[in-house]
This record gives sequence, C-alpha cells and structure tokens, in this order.
Amino acid sequence: MRFDEGYSGKVFIMSRPTHEEADAIIYGMPMDWTVSFRPGSRFGPNRIREASLGLEEYSPYMDKHLEEVNYFDAGDIPLPFGNPQRSLDMIQDYVEKILEQNKFPLGLGGEHLVTWPIIQAVYKKYSDLAMIHIDAHADLREEYEGEALSHSTPVRKICELIGPENVFSFGIRSGMRAEFQYAVNSGMYMAKYDVVEPLREVLPRLAGRPVYVTIDIDVLDPAYAPGTGTAEAGGITSKELLEAIQKIAESDLNVVGADLVEVAPVYDPTEKTPIAASKFVREMLLGWVK
Amino acid sequence: MRFDEGYSGKVFIMSRPTHEEADAIIYGMPMDWTVSFRPGSRFGPNRIREASLGLEEYSPYMDKHLEEVNYFDAGDIPLPFGNPQRSLDMIQDYVEKILEQNKFPLGLGGEHLVTWPIIQAVYKKYSDLAMIHIDAHADLREEYEGEALSHSTPVRKICELIGPENVFSFGIRSGMRAEFQYAVNSGMYMAKYDVVEPLREVLPRLAGRPVYVTIDIDVLDPAYAPGTGTAEAGGITSKELLEAIQKIAESDLNVVGADLVEVAPVYDPTEKTPIAASKFVREMLLGWVK
Amino acid sequence: MRFDEGYSGKVFIMSRPTHEEADAIIYGMPMDWTVSFRPGSRFGPNRIREASLGLEEYSPYMDKHLEEVNYFDAGDIPLPFGNPQRSLDMIQDYVEKILEQNKFPLGLGGEHLVTWPIIQAVYKKYSDLAMIHIDAHADLREEYEGEALSHSTPVRKICELIGPENVFSFGIRSGMRAEFQYAVNSGMYMAKYDVVEPLREVLPRLAGRPVYVTIDIDVLDPAYAPGTGTAEAGGITSKELLEAIQKIAESDLNVVGADLVEVAPVYDPTEKTPIAASKFVREMLLGWVK
Amino acid sequence: MRFDEGYSGKVFIMSRPTHEEADAIIYGMPMDWTVSFRPGSRFGPNRIREASLGLEEYSPYMDKHLEEVNYFDAGDIPLPFGNPQRSLDMIQDYVEKILEQNKFPLGLGGEHLVTWPIIQAVYKKYSDLAMIHIDAHADLREEYEGEALSHSTPVRKICELIGPENVFSFGIRSGMRAEFQYAVNSGMYMAKYDVVEPLREVLPRLAGRPVYVTIDIDVLDPAYAPGTGTAEAGGITSKELLEAIQKIAESDLNVVGADLVEVAPVYDPTEKTPIAASKFVREMLLGWVK
Amino acid sequence: MRFDEGYSGKVFIMSRPTHEEADAIIYGMPMDWTVSFRPGSRFGPNRIREASLGLEEYSPYMDKHLEEVNYFDAGDIPLPFGNPQRSLDMIQDYVEKILEQNKFPLGLGGEHLVTWPIIQAVYKKYSDLAMIHIDAHADLREEYEGEALSHSTPVRKICELIGPENVFSFGIRSGMRAEFQYAVNSGMYMAKYDVVEPLREVLPRLAGRPVYVTIDIDVLDPAYAPGTGTAEAGGITSKELLEAIQKIAESDLNVVGADLVEVAPVYDPTEKTPIAASKFVREMLLGWVK
Amino acid sequence: MRFDEGYSGKVFIMSRPTHEEADAIIYGMPMDWTVSFRPGSRFGPNRIREASLGLEEYSPYMDKHLEEVNYFDAGDIPLPFGNPQRSLDMIQDYVEKILEQNKFPLGLGGEHLVTWPIIQAVYKKYSDLAMIHIDAHADLREEYEGEALSHSTPVRKICELIGPENVFSFGIRSGMRAEFQYAVNSGMYMAKYDVVEPLREVLPRLAGRPVYVTIDIDVLDPAYAPGTGTAEAGGITSKELLEAIQKIAESDLNVVGADLVEVAPVYDPTEKTPIAASKFVREMLLGWVK
Repeated sequence: MRFDEGYSGKVFIMSRPTHEEADAIIYGMPMDWTVSFRPGSRFGPNRIREASLGLEEYSPYMDKHLEEVNYFDAGDIPLPFGNPQRSLDMIQDYVEKILEQNKFPLGLGGEHLVTWPIIQAVYKKYSDLAMIHIDAHADLREEYEGEALSHSTPVRKICELIGPENVFSFGIRSGMRAEFQYAVNSGMYMAKYDVVEPLREVLPRLAGRPVYVTIDIDVLDPAYAPGTGTAEAGGITSKELLEAIQKIAESDLNVVGADLVEVAPVYDPTEKTPIAASKFVREMLLGWVK
Repeated sequence: MRFDEGYSGKVFIMSRPTHEEADAIIYGMPMDWTVSFRPGSRFGPNRIREASLGLEEYSPYMDKHLEEVNYFDAGDIPLPFGNPQRSLDMIQDYVEKILEQNKFPLGLGGEHLVTWPIIQAVYKKYSDLAMIHIDAHADLREEYEGEALSHSTPVRKICELIGPENVFSFGIRSGMRAEFQYAVNSGMYMAKYDVVEPLREVLPRLAGRPVYVTIDIDVLDPAYAPGTGTAEAGGITSKELLEAIQKIAESDLNVVGADLVEVAPVYDPTEKTPIAASKFVREMLLGWVK
Repeated sequence: MRFDEGYSGKVFIMSRPTHEEADAIIYGMPMDWTVSFRPGSRFGPNRIREASLGLEEYSPYMDKHLEEVNYFDAGDIPLPFGNPQRSLDMIQDYVEKILEQNKFPLGLGGEHLVTWPIIQAVYKKYSDLAMIHIDAHADLREEYEGEALSHSTPVRKICELIGPENVFSFGIRSGMRAEFQYAVNSGMYMAKYDVVEPLREVLPRLAGRPVYVTIDIDVLDPAYAPGTGTAEAGGITSKELLEAIQKIAESDLNVVGADLVEVAPVYDPTEKTPIAASKFVREMLLGWVK
Repeated sequence: MRFDEGYSGKVFIMSRPTHEEADAIIYGMPMDWTVSFRPGSRFGPNRIREASLGLEEYSPYMDKHLEEVNYFDAGDIPLPFGNPQRSLDMIQDYVEKILEQNKFPLGLGGEHLVTWPIIQAVYKKYSDLAMIHIDAHADLREEYEGEALSHSTPVRKICELIGPENVFSFGIRSGMRAEFQYAVNSGMYMAKYDVVEPLREVLPRLAGRPVYVTIDIDVLDPAYAPGTGTAEAGGITSKELLEAIQKIAESDLNVVGADLVEVAPVYDPTEKTPIAASKFVREMLLGWVK
Repeated sequence: MRFDEGYSGKVFIMSRPTHEEADAIIYGMPMDWTVSFRPGSRFGPNRIREASLGLEEYSPYMDKHLEEVNYFDAGDIPLPFGNPQRSLDMIQDYVEKILEQNKFPLGLGGEHLVTWPIIQAVYKKYSDLAMIHIDAHADLREEYEGEALSHSTPVRKICELIGPENVFSFGIRSGMRAEFQYAVNSGMYMAKYDVVEPLREVLPRLAGRPVYVTIDIDVLDPAYAPGTGTAEAGGITSKELLEAIQKIAESDLNVVGADLVEVAPVYDPTEKTPIAASKFVREMLLGWVK
Repeated sequence: MRFDEGYSGKVFIMSRPTHEEADAIIYGMPMDWTVSFRPGSRFGPNRIREASLGLEEYSPYMDKHLEEVNYFDAGDIPLPFGNPQRSLDMIQDYVEKILEQNKFPLGLGGEHLVTWPIIQAVYKKYSDLAMIHIDAHADLREEYEGEALSHSTPVRKICELIGPENVFSFGIRSGMRAEFQYAVNSGMYMAKYDVVEPLREVLPRLAGRPVYVTIDIDVLDPAYAPGTGTAEAGGITSKELLEAIQKIAESDLNVVGADLVEVAPVYDPTEKTPIAASKFVREMLLGWVK
C-alpha cells in the first residue's frame, strides 16, 4: 500500500516504514487539472516532503517530537492526468480505506477540489461532521465556466452535503458577490480576512465534535507563500497560521482528518512556500493526531 | 484615444470599450529613465494589467463590483525613451485632457517623477488641491546629482507648487537628513514608518477638499513588494495598504485623481508585486471613483 | 470572432484588425491538462504574443515584411479547464470553420495533443494530406497510463487516421522502444536527432502535396528552449530550426496549416523560449502563408 | 591591513579609506563549510556591501548620518576553503588585533560558527562579557553528526565559555528537545518566538555591562529573508528587527562588538535579503558604535 | 547497505530494490566543502535522481532499455560536513567494498575532489588502470591556496598515483599556465576544447584496458549546464557529450567505473542541468555497465 | 582618475593599482536610458568585473597570462541618469583623454549608443579608422521613434562619420528592411548570421590599418547570453565568439580600442552572461592590447 510509481520514493521525515503500524497516513494528491489560473500544485506534495528534511523533528510550539506520532507517508496516489472524475473517485476510495482502518488521513494537495471526495469519505463515517476551512478564497461557486468539478466549487458542494451550518470558513478575502451572499444566507460561518481571533470564538462551539480541517496555503499572504496558483494579496502571516494550528490542537475538538493544499512550488524560486508548508504539516501531525 | 503602439492591447479587467463612456481613465506611464538605481518600472503598467486577470471583479472590502464603475483602460502613453522633459510634457497634456472631460485620472507608473506633471495638471483645475503621498521615500530632494528632473525630487517640486501645508506624506522611512529637516521646517505633514494610524488622524482634516493620492509601491516591505527599483526594508504589509485605501474611501475626501507607481516586475520572479498592485488598483477604482 | 474572455486582448504584432480581411488566423489553445510531467503550456500563446513586441517586422531570412501577409490574431479559444474531450471538440470545430473560409490556421499551444483535433479538421478538407512533425518526442504511444487522450499519443492517432506513410517525423530523440519499433514497422518516416539534413532529402518527395507542419518547441535543446514541459537534452539549435523553416518555405510544398506547441514560460525565467518562439512564428507567417 | 585577494575591492558605503583612522572595523568571514543544509553564506558579506549602495547614508530611526561614525571596511578574511579549524583560528587572531587597537569589530558572516572564535577573542578582553543572541535556531547542540565544529553548536560552546547565565537568546523557534531543555536547566535566558518585547525586559538588567550582539538573519521570517541557509517559517518582520536594534542602541549597554551572519544570497533572486541586511548594518554602525 | 539518513529515499528511476542483486551501484557523494567558488554540488545527486523521473527508460542512442541493466541506487554517503579528509576516507572505503563484490561503481558528485579517493580504490584492484577525464578544467594544481585537498587538484594526484601516461583529459579549456605545462611535460594526454574527435583517436589505443571515466558537467558550455560551481564559457554541447558517451560504449574499452560530478542545481532555475545529467547517467548505465 | 562614486570599488581581476602605469584602461559606461525594450545594461560593467573573479588569469587560447598586459580598471564613468547628451559628451571626453596618453581604451557597456561618442574620439586620432562591428542587430536606423540618440542608431552615425566603406558588420540577423538596404547600397560590409568565416575573409583586407572593434553581447544566441536587453534567437555560440576574438588577435590589424556592450545581468539568473563576457574581456586584453 505504498504508491511507488511516478515520484520514486521521497517521504516526509520520520515516516514509519509500513502502513500497518501507523496511526496516521500522509498521502499526496498530485492533481491540478481543473485549475483556472496557474497549474503546478501537482508537485506540491513532493516538495513538501523534500523541504521536511530541513525541519527539526521536535516542535517547541507543541513541546512534542515526531517520534511520538506513528505516521506513514504513502506517497502520491497515481491520479490519471486530465481526468478529474476518475481522480476524485480514486481519492475517495483511498480515504475510505484509511478510515476503515481507523487511521488519520493527512492529505497533501494538489488543487483544492481534492477536499470534495475526502469529505464524502469522511462524512460516511461521521454523520455529525463539521469542517474548518482556512483559505483566501470562498470556493463557494456552483460551477466555474460550465464545469461543476472545479477548484472553485468544493466548499459549496460540501455545504450541500454536510449542511452549511457545519462549515466554518476563516481568512476569506476573495470571491464573487454571490459567494459572499451565500455565506450570509445559508447559515454557514465565514470570518473574513482573519483566522486566529475568529477561531478563538468558534472552537468552544465545536467541542467534542468530529471535525475535518482543510488549509489552503493561499490563506497566507503571497509574501509568505508565493508558491501557489492563485496568490491573493492581503493575507495572514506564517506566525498566525502556526498559532491557528496550535489553537485547534489545544481545543476540545476531535480532529478526524486534515489536508494542506495548493502548494505550487514552481512560482516560488526561494522555496519558502514548501519550507513553511512542511512546518505546518509537522505541527498538524504533532497537534492533531491523537 | 487608445494608445495601441508598442504594448499591443492588454487592458485591466472589465475596462469599458471606449474612452467616451468612461468616468475614470486608467493610463500607463512606462518611464524609468531618470532612476538612479534599478530601472524596469516601464513594464509595471502592463504587468499590473496582466495580473488583473487573476482578480475577482467583486471586492468584499468595498462590497462593490467593478461593473459599478465605468472606467476605460487607455493603454500606455508612448513616451520617448530617454527624453525626460518631453515625457513629462506628454503626461501633463494627457491628464489635462482627461480632467477637462471631468474624468478621473488613474495613472500607473513608471517612476515616481511622473506624479510631478500630473499634479501640475490637476492643480490647474483645483487650486485648493491637497496631496496624500504614501511612500517609503521622502522624494523631497532639490536635485539628484545635478539633475532636477529625477525620481527623487517630485514631492519637493509639488510642495513648492501647491504649498507644503497641502502635502501629507505617510510611511516615510528613507531620505537624506535635509529632506527630513525640510519636512519639519516647511510645514508639510510627514508620518514616519506608519500609514493607517496617521491617516486616521489626518483624514478628518481634509474633509470636503479635493485630494490627489499617489502611492509608491515601495511603501510596502520588500517581503510584500520586491518588484520595485529601490526596495527599502522595514515597510508596511499589503493588509495595511488595503486598509489605508479603504480608510480614504470611507472618508469625506473628494478624491480627484490617483496613481500607483514604481512597480518593476523583473526584480520579482514570484509576480507577487504586480498581483498585489492589481488588487490595489481594483480597490482604488471601487473606493475612490465617485 | 475574437476570443476576448480570460486573457484580455494581447495580440501578435501587426495582426490585422478583423478576422474577415485575413488570409491566415493565429489562434491559441491554452490547454495543458493531460500532460504527465510539468504543466504550464496554457500560458504559451500569450507569452509568445508578448515576446513578439521585441521582434522586427522584417525578416532578413525571408527578405519579407509582416505587412506582406494578412493575418489576424484571434486570441485564445476559451477551452474548459480539465475537460480534454470538450477542449478537443472546440479546437476541431474552430479549425474547420477557418478552413471553410480558405484561411490558413496557425495554432499556438498548449500541449501537443491539440494537433490531433486540428489534423482531423484538416484531413476532412485534404484527403491526400501529409504531416511534417518536428519534435524531440515520438508521441506515438497508444495510450498513457490508461488515457488515450494524452500529450504522448497524438502522432500515433494521426498515423492511424491519415496513414503512417504520410507522416514524417524529424529530430526525434526520446520515446519508448515500442514507439521506435512502430516507426520502423509502420512505414512512417522518422529521422532521429537531426532535422535540417533529413528535411533536405524528404522535401522533394512531398512536392505539390498539401502538408501540415507541427513543431514542438522541445525539439530545441533545453539550452535554447528551457521553457517547456518535458525538456530533453541533446537537441538542435535555434539556428537549425530557423533553417528548417526556411527550407520548407523554399520547397514546393503546399503548406495548408501549422502549429507551434509546448511553450511553457514559467520554467524559463530568462524568457528566451517565448522570444525564440515568436521569431519562429514570424518566419512561419512570412514563409508558409501563400 | 586590507584583505584584497579574492573578492576585489567592494566596500560598504562610506567606509573610511584606512584602517588606522577608524573606530570600527567591518570585516567579512566568507565561510560556509560546516553547514548541514544549504551552503552559500560565503557570498553574504559581499552582497551586503553591494546592496549598501542603495542605502541612504542618513537614518531617520537614529537621526544620525554615517559620516558621524568612523569605520573601515577591511574586506573578507581569506579563509581556507574546507578547513574549519584554520578558519576559526584566523578569525580569532584578527578580532584580537582589532580589539587590541580598541576598535569595534563588526563582522559579517558566513555561517554562525564564526561567532565562536569572535567570542573567544572578545572574552579575553572583557571577562564580564554578556552576549545577546538573536536567531531562529537555538544553536545549542553539543555536536552535529559527530562534528563539534558545526554551525549548530556555537551558542553551546559560548555558554560553556562565558557561563550560560551571561547568554541571552531571542526569537528562538527551532531546535532539538535537548537544546530547549538545556536552555531551561542551564540558567541561560531564552525568549521563544519574539524579540522586541523580551528585549525590553532584559536590557535594563544588562545596563553598564560589556555586551556582544550576534544576529542571525534567519530570525526574520523567510518572507523577509529567504536568502539564508536554513530558513524557518514563523519569524519576525524587518520592522521588528529594526526596532530591536534601536532598543539596544537606546539602552545603557556597552556594546563591544557585533555580527550579522547567515546571509546566503543565492536563495533569494529578489535580493531583498542583502538589501535588508545592509540596512541593519547601517543601523548597527549608527546605534552601537560609540 | 542503503544510505537513508538525510536525503530520505529518492532513487534513480528503475533502481532495483536491493544492493545484492545489482551489477552496478549508483551512489551519491554530497560534498562541496573544498570548492573555492560557488558551493552547492552537495545537492547534485538528489536533483539528478529527481530529474530521472522525466526520462524515458529506453534509449534510442543505445537501443537498450534500463531493465536490461541491474543497478541499485544506494543513496548518498552521509559525508561529514566540513571535514574533507574523513569524507574522502568514507568514499574510498565504500568504493572498495563495491569493487570487492565485482559491482560497477557509478558515482554522482559533489565536487570533483571525490574522484581522488575513488581512483585510489579502483587502482588497488586494477594496477594497469587508465582514466578518461572529460572536463573544462585541467584540475592539475598541486595545491590551492595552501590546501592540497581541493577541487582543483584531483587529476594531478591521480597522475602521480597511476602515472601521467595513463591519464587522458578531454575538453580542457581552463587552468593555470603551470597546469598546461605539466600536461605537456608529464606525458599525459590532453585534448583542449574538443572531446569527440580526440576520443575517436584515443579510444583504439586503450582497447582492452580497464578504464575509469570521470565526467565533470562543466565540460558543457554554460548554455547547456549553468548549474555548476565554476561555469566556463566556450564548452561543448549536450549532443557532443552524448556522442562521446556512445563512442566509449562502442569501443573495446573495459570500463570499470565512472562518475559524473559538479552538478550544482541552485544556479540553474530552469533545471536543465540535472535534466541533462540524468540523461547522461542513463546512457552511462546502458552503455558502460557490461 | 579612478571613478569611485556610486559603484564602490569593484575591479576586473589583476587590474594594476594606478592609471599611470597602465597601457590599457578598462572603463564602464553604465547607461541604458535610450533603450526601447528592456533596460538594465547599466549594471553590466560591474557584473562583468565580479564574474572576472571566477576566471583563470592564464588563457590557453592565447597562451598568455594577464600579468603580461598592463591595464587599469578605472571603474564606471558617473553618467547622469536620464540625460543622454551629457552622458555621451562625458564618454567622448574621457576616451579622448585616454587616447592622448596613448593608452588602449577598453569600454564596457551599457547600451550600444555608447560606441558613437567613442568612435568620435578615436576618429579624431586615426583618420583612416575602420570599425569591426559584431552584433545581432544592424543598428543602422536613422532615428528611433523621433529620437536620433538611440541604441538603434550608432552604426549608422558611425558610417556617416568615418565612411560606410570603413565599417564591417558581422553576425547581423535583425533589422528593418531599410537597414539591410542601406547595408547593400552604402558600400559598407555586412555578413549576415555568421562571424568567423566572414572574418577570415575580411581580416587580410584590413591588415595594417587602425581598427576599432565593438562587440554587442547579443550576437550570441540567447542560449549563451540571455542577459541582454534585446535577445534575438538564432545567434552564434560562445566558442565561435572566442574564435573570432582569436582570429582578430592573430591578424595583422592594429586594434586601437574596443568595447563589449549590452550585458544586462538581471535577465539572466544563471549569471552565464557576465561569466562569458568576463572571459571575452580577458581574451580581448590578452590578444588585442599590444
């Protein structure tokens, strides 16, 4: 159950040697074929793995060491280039399998559309699921230029599946008017621009519930994460995102899965985007996998 | 009245098809021949236009859509390479024409010297003009190595034309000692380092007055805008500049024209500078054109 | 009949103002969703247009000026992101329309798969069609990881449509063993590594016939064209490709259409790839449109 | 006493012409051979000098001009490539000579290990020495993969030499668990993540004492300083570091020497890292050399 | 016998799963601490592995497929940063072990000094060893600024070990006068500037002999391989180097080991250097491992 | 007579310490204000100096060492930004002074217009002057968009001054039709595309005459020299340009001065353009200064 084809063998630091012994599974979804602007997030998962080599294994934020978490990096799912529907099916199947084994799925994108099949899988298991969505973009479109399977639509689809009242968006600073109106009218929660302060308020409300967390790297300002497809000025800092991850870790949520998406390394010759992303993954592993 | 030569046909998103029907005119000033350090801002206007394709047309900051503002992107004025005086004359003539038609001039630089002919044109129409100047550099030199027409002198010249008491500078963190002394002694207003807080204090004082606003992209820290000729560490964030634009939009000022200058794309392989600049232009259009 | 959405208004230098008066049509196919390696050729057509601004309009190679050719740059066909089949249908429809009007289609890619629908359209009109294919890769696969619509398959499909004996490949230096065996066994023509010398031999054989020419920019060595998805060391020089274009222009072929594909600008911060590509397009216009 | 070989003749702006007349000496330590991750800081000192050409000579932060400080830029010490021990000896010898002449040593790195021989030299002169250490990394390892001379060990060695109670670290956000435990148990001072606030608290305690200050550029977030060997997300801004330098300047410390290390220009195509570093050096000269 | 630490798990395409079953061993030597100019070749081996993912497994040059060669990629030897002598010892030990098992050592550098310990190992086994050296630089210095262990000295040391009459250098275009004089006076063979023609002449002379081949990527012109420490204008093309590899494969030499060194990826944002290097490695595997 | 302002102190390797003792003077002309496309050649001279640090001082091509030529690097003439006429006057004055002292002027550009004042100075001294011009562009325009002082006009002006029959252009592959017609009709010599072969034919004709040689780096293909303002595909290789310099050195010409222009480093992140340029300068010094 190791995906070896295509992107031979890189793993996140301290990955356990086998799937079986792991409590959490890191898996890549190298898919960027529905993006409307700049492609390249297919290379995100591997660059994050590579950048993980520069990380310390101990986190002073969590006061915890990676050896305290049993995870296995399964590599990238070999998604078929240019075939969105088949790609989404493969992701959903894979996540269902992980969940059946009671392991924590930690996905690396790829474009944000990948969260849609993941949530379909997670929702099958947790019918009272809530989702925390940290992003620059609302992703609430019904379709994008005629295509319902688009990186602009996943949160809308998820609202329709699990109920908008169970979706909590943070940091949103871009979208169509209709998306912001939907956010207001549907009953979902949306915090514009900021992440940490609104989280502080929302987290107690979610105590005890199963929650899936999806982070789009473009919630960061392009100063911090230029390596992404649709960079949007006016974002938060790395320090704030680290604080958000920590706040969630310290809360009483039951985090049941998570992903980090939209790292597109080619737009960032300084490599600071995968460097930051690999640190966020370390913190997610240390703080959220119980 | 469309400048077509040279930089064939790129326009800012949602530009109206003709000059005539527009209330505001976007025009480029592709001039960088007096800069003393790194040239390249001649390509700023077109990269800002190009980056505008990645923008949403709706702004959650202003709760307004670009279709609510009638503007026309006239392209770049075909300025003669290496001839500063003739370039400045062409800019002044062009802005005078726009103002005669009661349209709002929104200029894209190019080096900061372009603001000098613009203010000459605007001042002819508004004798009680004030100027808001947001920049890292004081630009208050009398001359630069013997040349009075230099990117380091425009604000000084403007002080001498419209009176220093009508010039309000924000965010300044670099200049000669004589420039800072002039700021203190002349009676102009200068806020060092910060923009939003001092604006909050100054804006009420300018209520009802005709005000021109010039923004030098280098007021941002190089983390946010590395693509500029004379990057200066210690600047503000994109979030703060967005807030400043919004503060001005919500004030009782009569904004009569504006520009955004010194975007030099070649120094920024990540493209984050034109990406941010295009968002600022969207906000200026939505917030300042009445 | 001008595609305006999305990539607002850039055109190749000296494009005529309307479709109607033109003898040749430049059109972009911003598609890269089936590529298996590095995406980004969707931005190729517009960067080629942009680089054309640095070109002289006169060619000393052809002793001819662009004003001697009537062409119209129609912009990019608005292909649906992530939907290969619908994209190919749109391309075929468009090229059929151009051919009905007896205009010369000059396509800019985009991934190489776009040549497949073009040939389907051209072959409908010219049943004795031959194709000249200049490329680093054989593109003779039957499928790629289960997908028949892939950037690795177009030449195979074309062989099956117009007959392998009518397909002439040049410069090939990469492929599977089965592809090279197909080349040998099927009766098609394949020149490995070189382009100019083999062309010199083949061109007389094609005299008088309708010929479509497809050029993949990766036939150049990555020294000359690093900005492409699957760069392959050991290629030809820009000088050789210019000579090949000239050889074809001077032959007795009836060139009925052409394309230049796989320019992926993001991998080339020096911009030398679109700079070279725009020169090739100028020569193709001057030499091949009769 | 000018190091001319190798890196011919670049100097920090306004360097006095001779060593003799100077109160402070700028010297480069182009050494990066023990780094475990990305080398390249050997080019740091010269890029900082080069970037200094874009600086104003007057600082509004300090209200002081570089002509008010007598300093000489001695160039780079010609350290032997790949020989750590001999390199460290040369640095120590050189700094001892500077101190004998009662001049202020202002060193430019190079990897952080260079601070170790400097402190050995400074401590000989000032037996009650304290050190302020501003950095992302604790640098408290005892050894690194078997090598005691490593860029990860200098602060530990310094603790052992001058006593942990005389070492004050700020901004630390990365290290092994053992390093953070050492910080707690040894009696040294360590402020995690932040710099300005903790400094405000600590500075009064150090009043009157001789203090050496070492700044690792990676205390800044990679958004501000991507050009460094081991970039670590979650850091401080340039504005905060400028404020820290100013706080120290305004305190009652007796700053007896300083360095700025780990600028590795090749990882930063935007040049913002050396641009910021040269400004920090200007402020250090203006604020700390008495 | 897999080096897993540090650079987790990347391998050259089609590596066999274990050391035991292999006839050839690929191993990396991530060492760049004695280089006098631009470091960074420590990352060469892994970037070559990564670029191998873009290669076809079949070579039309050799008409051979990688599955026909049994090789194992052992990863990078964990060399101690900044300790040249210990690094060289580890390399020599490792190569001796490979040779004892009658496997073919195929080394990836790293700086060129690594060839020195390799030849020491190979010469122990083959006392009539000859070396083919393809490089821009003579590497014949006796020492470099006092250090005998330097990337400028390996070929001199090798001449002294195996006899200058057994050393054959090709493509040399840079060195001190004394190096060129040594080449003339010592009796070694040196072809300036060119590689293929002189090889054609020399190869028959070496028929039947055990020969080690070392290739420094900088024999290519910087147009083809900018990603190297000491780029030197006026070099050969990728096509010529491919031809040289093929000439050696077709000769009657007994190639007993080989290396490819000095790929320093950070100086090449286009990635064309590792892309070319990985193709050379494929050809070396297919053509030289018998 | 050392220009110290502005670009503090970098020199070409092995520059003699004073102007007086030198037989040749290297001087920079950091001017790019009339260029119509991409500026940035103002930084060319200093990057060439910097890259010279990576050069060997001995040339195997010339079998000569830099210590055999007495030259002084005078730095950059402090040209006034944005003032073409005053800049040209300063250049002419300076070169006249050098020639009065019977020294060899070796100029580094900057844009190609700088050759115009140089030739005016040289022609005053040598009334039977001929010029060898190696370039991609004819530079024979009468004016450029109304400006006679433009980087597109210098060779035309020079033809008019010294007579077209004394001007010999090589490698030309771009220009307006009128320029190529002027070349044919005026009696000047122009070799299209190639340099070495035509030089071989022309050099004997110029035996014994005083000849000035101007090289525009863009005669190289962008593969070899992407760092230039108006890159033009289809050029020669570095090897060919080295051969051309050598051919001139071995001829019976009396070379009385030379320049190398249009290196614009910012467009070349690989630095291969200044690296190649510095080698050409070394060869010009060794081969042409008698």
